[in-house]
Amino acid sequence: MAQTIDHETNRVAVGKPTRRMDAEEKLTGRARFSGDLSFPGLLHARLVLSPYAHARIVSIDTTAALAIPGVVAVYTADTLKMAKAHESSRSQAPLARDEVFWCGHPVAVVLAESEALAQDGAEAVDVDYDPLPVVIDPLAALQPDSPLTRPRSKDETSEIAGGGTHADVGNTQAEEEEQEELSQNVSDHVHMHTGDIEAGLREADVVVERTYRTHSVHQSYMEPQSITVVPEQTSGHKMRVYASTQGLYNARTDISNALNLPERQILVEPMPIGGAFGGKFGLVEPLAAAVAYAIRKPVRLVYTRQDELLAGNPAPQSVITVKLGAKRDGTLVALQARIILDSGAFPGAAAGLAGYLISSVYRCANTDIRCYEVLTNKVSVGAYRAPDAPQTAFALESTVADLCQEMQIDPIEFRRQNGLRGGDPSGNPRRPTLPPLGLIECLDGIERHPLWKERQKLKEPPVELAGWKIGFGLAVGGWPGGNDVAAAACRLESDGTVSVVVGTVDLTGSDTSLALIAAEAMGVPSSQVNVAHDATDTMPYSGATGGSKTIYSMGPAVMAAARDARQQILQIASDMLEAAVDDLEFKNDSVAVKGVPGKSLSLQKIAQASTSFSRRGPVYGQGRTPVPEGSPMYAAHLARVAVDPDTGEVRVLDYVAAQDVGQAINPPAVEGQIHGGVTQGLGWALFEGLEHDENGQLLTATFMDYALPHSFDVPNITPLLIEVPSGPGPYGAKGVGEPPVIPVAGAIANAISDAVGVRPTEIPITPERLFNALHQ
Amino acid sequence: MAQTIDHETNRVAVGKPTRRMDAEEKLTGRARFSGDLSFPGLLHARLVLSPYAHARIVSIDTTAALAIPGVVAVYTADTLKMAKAHESSRSQAPLARDEVFWCGHPVAVVLAESEALAQDGAEAVDVDYDPLPVVIDPLAALQPDSPLTRPRSKDETSEIAGGGTHADVGNTQAEEEEQEELSQNVSDHVHMHTGDIEAGLREADVVVERTYRTHSVHQSYMEPQSITVVPEQTSGHKMRVYASTQGLYNARTDISNALNLPERQILVEPMPIGGAFGGKFGLVEPLAAAVAYAIRKPVRLVYTRQDELLAGNPAPQSVITVKLGAKRDGTLVALQARIILDSGAFPGAAAGLAGYLISSVYRCANTDIRCYEVLTNKVSVGAYRAPDAPQTAFALESTVADLCQEMQIDPIEFRRQNGLRGGDPSGNPRRPTLPPLGLIECLDGIERHPLWKERQKLKEPPVELAGWKIGFGLAVGGWPGGNDVAAAACRLESDGTVSVVVGTVDLTGSDTSLALIAAEAMGVPSSQVNVAHDATDTMPYSGATGGSKTIYSMGPAVMAAARDARQQILQIASDMLEAAVDDLEFKNDSVAVKGVPGKSLSLQKIAQASTSFSRRGPVYGQGRTPVPEGSPMYAAHLARVAVDPDTGEVRVLDYVAAQDVGQAINPPAVEGQIHGGVTQGLGWALFEGLEHDENGQLLTATFMDYALPHSFDVPNITPLLIEVPSGPGPYGAKGVGEPPVIPVAGAIANAISDAVGVRPTEIPITPERLFNALHQ
Repeated sequence: MAQTIDHETNRVAVGKPTRRMDAEEKLTGRARFSGDLSFPGLLHARLVLSPYAHARIVSIDTTAALAIPGVVAVYTADTLKMAKAHESSRSQAPLARDEVFWCGHPVAVVLAESEALAQDGAEAVDVDYDPLPVVIDPLAALQPDSPLTRPRSKDETSEIAGGGTHADVGNTQAEEEEQEELSQNVSDHVHMHTGDIEAGLREADVVVERTYRTHSVHQSYMEPQSITVVPEQTSGHKMRVYASTQGLYNARTDISNALNLPERQILVEPMPIGGAFGGKFGLVEPLAAAVAYAIRKPVRLVYTRQDELLAGNPAPQSVITVKLGAKRDGTLVALQARIILDSGAFPGAAAGLAGYLISSVYRCANTDIRCYEVLTNKVSVGAYRAPDAPQTAFALESTVADLCQEMQIDPIEFRRQNGLRGGDPSGNPRRPTLPPLGLIECLDGIERHPLWKERQKLKEPPVELAGWKIGFGLAVGGWPGGNDVAAAACRLESDGTVSVVVGTVDLTGSDTSLALIAAEAMGVPSSQVNVAHDATDTMPYSGATGGSKTIYSMGPAVMAAARDARQQILQIASDMLEAAVDDLEFKNDSVAVKGVPGKSLSLQKIAQASTSFSRRGPVYGQGRTPVPEGSPMYAAHLARVAVDPDTGEVRVLDYVAAQDVGQAINPPAVEGQIHGGVTQGLGWALFEGLEHDENGQLLTATFMDYALPHSFDVPNITPLLIEVPSGPGPYGAKGVGEPPVIPVAGAIANAISDAVGVRPTEIPITPERLFNALHQ
Repeated sequence: MAQTIDHETNRVAVGKPTRRMDAEEKLTGRARFSGDLSFPGLLHARLVLSPYAHARIVSIDTTAALAIPGVVAVYTADTLKMAKAHESSRSQAPLARDEVFWCGHPVAVVLAESEALAQDGAEAVDVDYDPLPVVIDPLAALQPDSPLTRPRSKDETSEIAGGGTHADVGNTQAEEEEQEELSQNVSDHVHMHTGDIEAGLREADVVVERTYRTHSVHQSYMEPQSITVVPEQTSGHKMRVYASTQGLYNARTDISNALNLPERQILVEPMPIGGAFGGKFGLVEPLAAAVAYAIRKPVRLVYTRQDELLAGNPAPQSVITVKLGAKRDGTLVALQARIILDSGAFPGAAAGLAGYLISSVYRCANTDIRCYEVLTNKVSVGAYRAPDAPQTAFALESTVADLCQEMQIDPIEFRRQNGLRGGDPSGNPRRPTLPPLGLIECLDGIERHPLWKERQKLKEPPVELAGWKIGFGLAVGGWPGGNDVAAAACRLESDGTVSVVVGTVDLTGSDTSLALIAAEAMGVPSSQVNVAHDATDTMPYSGATGGSKTIYSMGPAVMAAARDARQQILQIASDMLEAAVDDLEFKNDSVAVKGVPGKSLSLQKIAQASTSFSRRGPVYGQGRTPVPEGSPMYAAHLARVAVDPDTGEVRVLDYVAAQDVGQAINPPAVEGQIHGGVTQGLGWALFEGLEHDENGQLLTATFMDYALPHSFDVPNITPLLIEVPSGPGPYGAKGVGEPPVIPVAGAIANAISDAVGVRPTEIPITPERLFNALHQ
């Protein structure tokens, strides 16, 4: 394999378009996922879900289910042994005890010899319910006199409601926080403020205030929640776990807590993941493990799509009021927001994060952000690509657009004037100023793009859309940038290839990018690098794959491990070639003495010389890196949409997404992330939402009703890769996964507003909603 | 767990008697071995073995076998696809093609849905044989006019027979090596010489020459050869292998060669091993892998005990002539030997090693050693605890005993005078003098022992053995000491325990000793240390477990990894406790500031502070060590036996085994090795031997006929641990596994000779053989 060096960057791997290592196996259907595994005696698990959104469980009769030949067991909260310590957590107490809290709440789990028998068994479990009052709408739940979503244990009173978690974060002097009377359904509230919001609003020449609504959106990964657990009695283990999880150690900890077993008695194996998007940080693992542990047989639990929509962990619904004030000169002087996140039946919507996100786009001297997490009788929420950010960006960027319009200020100009820049104060005492960030550069990228420059000309609809209105919408968004510690190992293989050993699971091609980083650090073509996955007992430590932190945090560890291995290789080569290390260079799959033709050693020979009974140590590099801070990452999007004023139908015609990625390790993979993120953003903007009736029945429990964007709904998306290098990221890389979903709903809403002069305030902007707004 | 420090050695772990970590799981029957595994669709393999020692295969009819319901396939050499490159190797060409070479040679392999069906199928395979002349006795095979054991391919002519491998090793001036006419059955011969043997013999005042015979001995591990292979199509793998093998990488290489697949497409998992003793360095892996690869289903092959005795890889039979010459003053001046090793149907008896071993016990200026490896129509051989050493030591030490008797020299005194010492010339240009070695110290240990001091008094038989004759026998033996390169990793776990990650499989408690080494290096009690096993894709490199090199070679890597991790822990603790690293100490499961009570951090807290989103890197230590040279290890044994002169029956009454172990890492484990080795040595001496009739039929194909020592045959064995520290070994440790088996047959034979005045020259010294000798 010949090696090509980019003479501009002097790089051999990083930045080169590279085919994903996992592509062939996945495209040819050979990859085996957690739900594909089989073991002798395997039992299939199926859940009995509550048809009521809130009800008392009067009785559960399993007689008929157990009478079906092949149905082996039925477990309920009363019969399944799990630790009580974390019973207020949904995943730790997966089966409803005494009461169900949402329509879809698991009541029992049936084990049978086949999937079909388990399904038959689940349908035969006879549960008698006594319905209770339901609370569906987050605003209704917020009312002080609202019925309770659910009773709370004593343990939870310190966690939930008026007496619950509360943070008051501000840089003003300590002040008496006014007592707000809150419903006991409020499980978390945070108040963040800087400056003096009232003064800011007084100072403002223009003030715009609006209230927005977003709906709960499901991650809709291709592979549903899937796990196979095999009980074991060997090597100190109690079980071996094959889970579709983003984090092997997360799964281990969750199961350890749920079963009160030491973590090291649980072995979690790395598995390929068929999509996760944040939705696989831990949901079904404790349940599946408890069931397998109880029955001492291998158990497989794979969600159906309906289970996913009824009992997954989607993104929270929100109601967000934003009030912005600016001076005539364009300076933003007041940012007030009230963010209500509907967490469903259990806490977890991360209200504080929403507040942080909405105040991390623009410089503003006076801010006042109140965030509320409220419980309702709906499925509880989890992480989904840039948690809370699509919602807050939709609200903020819609309001900014109206502010710009009101002030007759160019929307790029306003954002350039007020947008955060590297060196701005961060509010973080550990890092008082912001590191390099590319929000302005992204705006510059949009401004240079023909879609922006020629927007006046492009206001005409194409002939086939005669009568439709064309609009342009701009929006920005950012993500603070996750970080984590990580370790990696690097080996030289007997065939002369190099392996990096990692504990992160591959998501969105992360393995391929890690291989490029290792190749670059080692100085070999990326085709020479393998990525080997390790299980929880033996893997170098790594956190979960997600949060746009995998390459950013694992990359440096991989880089360090590869460099360590490189030094070891050079040392051996130096000894064998009788040349100084400094006189050696990597050339394709060899180490050569610089300027001495023919004096070289293949990596294969070096591998052989360093293993089996040799007098040289094996090549085994190690890297461990604390990445102390995240690197914020920003995007600016421009959408061109067409709106049919007669029907409210919207078509997205063109889309440009500029994003600061620091350094694109594998450019097509980064572009793929942007394509995917924008597409999911279009889902938020125009199509997706879990809709409930007033009793909490889910109206969108299949993909016939829950509308994902189709391929024909997705326009040509042009990614613009902006590279403002980060300090800590490998070769300057930043995270790339979260940002592309963030600005989309705002950009689309702004484009619609531009097209038809009506401000959409609720997403998804369905034709019905837009038609109603147009004809109000 | 409180920590105890040995104030003499200042050690917390090394040298402390410690229970084996694997004991509970194995004693309670919970350990799962390679043959216990099951997978959906698993097929069971059974071999069809040749009933002839040498025959042409006329035809193989599988019709009747395949007609049995549940028999799925029958493969022969012609139908099983394997690479041709290494066809002269037994394991690479496991099924006989055209000809069978020994009684037990596999001809076909049957796959069926159960073990019993596979057995039925194997019995139904109809093979038509045309018998050919057989060569059974090694001396007959050596005759120039001997029939050929088997035809040889062109490739093999450079490997086998007169034109084959030949080494002439000597420090005399280059000389014309006389042409010896050799049978083409000779597959290897080596001539080693120093000084002038003829001059030495002339110089000698006393010369003793004898010829000895030993028989082929089986390793008789409890767990037979076992392997389960699961074909895969994921992560770049073709198969996952669970094998009872001493070396994961050996198995991977063997399968890679046999199937012509890249090594990284084969994943070999670490498995517990139910005994190996050298016999599991690779035998059935290529066959099982080829079958599973061909049929694309999981396949399990587990030898029956009869398969083991017919088709295993036992230790070679030998015929050894030793001629020793000494001067009156006790100086050994001539050592001449002719060593014939019967390798069975394939080469592998390591003739050169035998020559090296016989000349590595005593200083002697004039040596002349000729070694021959000869092929016969018997099962081919493999490694067994100290390969070739029990045979050569039996021959050498018997002759030394007679020499001492002839010269009226005290046998300890003679050995002390002539025995090798550290600093003696080694004959190895890379290390011209021998490192510290404890042969003399072992003799001192025996001399100090009551069994030696009171030997005159103890010549009286106990009352229940009235009429029996009592004798004492002394013998020594040594092993050069293996070495290998190795790597290891060391992690701090979430529960504050420490794990070392290794690729060596646990044999004879090696894991426990590695844990002690890690504990010592880390400074924590050994109960805080886990040993985690890794598979071939991700493990730190290590060679096979065996050759008395595991602790010696892996130990330093584990030590280095633990020290690396310790430094990382101290760094984190220093940061968290705001104290200099030098002011910190490990205390039980914490790191404390010296002399500041209460100022400490648990390892659990440090683990938590160094993982999950922390600002400190995870603790992940690494060690890689080339151990450049072996450390020779010696033993001296003293046996007291009783012989019934009327029947030739022998009882071993007392046994003292002094052995230089450098440093006993886990003393009871070392003593256990000595107990086991001596017991196996008693098998060599008195009981074990594969016996064939003149047609090559094995007469000892079950444990009813092949006599292993029973518990009542084993005397009270007293190990004396002598500690002459090695340089490179961890804490001075040397290997311990091989030496205890080496001197046993010599000590027993010398004791019998002492008792009844008859020199046994053939082992096992069965009552029949001894009776015949007594009544000749």
